[in-house]
Amino acid sequence: MQDDSHLIEVQTASERVFDGALLHINRDTVRLPDNSSATREYVVHPGAVMIIPVLPDGRLLMERQFRFPLDRVFIEFPAGKLDPGEDPLACGQRELLEETGYTASEWQYLGVIHPLISYSSEEIKVYLAKGLVAGEAQLDEGEFLELISMSLDELKAAVLDGRITDGKTTSGIFWAEQLLGEVG
Amino acid sequence: MQDDSHLIEVQTASERVFDGALLHINRDTVRLPDNSSATREYVVHPGAVMIIPVLPDGRLLMERQFRFPLDRVFIEFPAGKLDPGEDPLACGQRELLEETGYTASEWQYLGVIHPLISYSSEEIKVYLAKGLVAGEAQLDEGEFLELISMSLDELKAAVLDGRITDGKTTSGIFWAEQLLGEVG
Repeated sequence: MQDDSHLIEVQTASERVFDGALLHINRDTVRLPDNSSATREYVVHPGAVMIIPVLPDGRLLMERQFRFPLDRVFIEFPAGKLDPGEDPLACGQRELLEETGYTASEWQYLGVIHPLISYSSEEIKVYLAKGLVAGEAQLDEGEFLELISMSLDELKAAVLDGRITDGKTTSGIFWAEQLLGEVG
Repeated sequence: MQDDSHLIEVQTASERVFDGALLHINRDTVRLPDNSSATREYVVHPGAVMIIPVLPDGRLLMERQFRFPLDRVFIEFPAGKLDPGEDPLACGQRELLEETGYTASEWQYLGVIHPLISYSSEEIKVYLAKGLVAGEAQLDEGEFLELISMSLDELKAAVLDGRITDGKTTSGIFWAEQLLGEVG
């Protein structure tokens, strides 16, 4: 076991400083490795799930969605926030159905992504979904998105030329390449 | 030009609802594509730079750093926030020197990562840095980190087995693989 005492911060106080409609912010005090103290502010997040959906022809099912904080449309893998107490796999199946209308017969858990480790506790569990069957999307009220399919080669090119910049999606393309690289 | 009017949200009001020591939160009102309205809360961020530093032997220079929101040490590429009015390349050079002590003779701009498009405006500009020469790190007060080097193969394995989960770093490994894949 590695000794990380020269890196570790220990919480000495914690305060909820903002409760918004969507965001919840804590401001904590920590003791640093040199025994000095510092302030840490971060978004407290319930966790999320991202799905890498592989269509029967090997192409990947992607969403185009407007993201207001950056004022433009992004190409993304389907993803969504966990409901309170929800099982991550059930969340993935629910989000895939709601957002795309697809169900999948094969679900493989790949691992986690931490999208923003400096100021969010968010953890995204990632699943590969295969055996896709199309159905009817059931978008939440106020949710607007468009479905497209792209090959792995197109996705890789889209990262390199800047058409895909979403961090979770680029991480997912890395995973897809390692697992499906031969499909092309 | 694609018509995205079925996806686009238009800002109708904007309010700063939280000004913290580190985080700044806006709560905006938007008009949705169906003319209904919705609330958007998000972190307003000045932008950041991430560096993919390639050592003379082809290994990559990485940091191990404790990240309080997730209460553990992460393996990451060097990165840091832009100072007000700072040029991104100058920021990358400053952060690499401060955090690692290294200077680099070759800087190649690769593109941007948006780490958390649902609730942060943060954009990370990514640079590949080569021609590295070691020097003395100049860590900010209260900053603690450890330097390690890893080969591209080790980095890829570390994503797949869960030792690397930081989104910006996984995205950077994807970039490194496309650009340096032959180095191994």
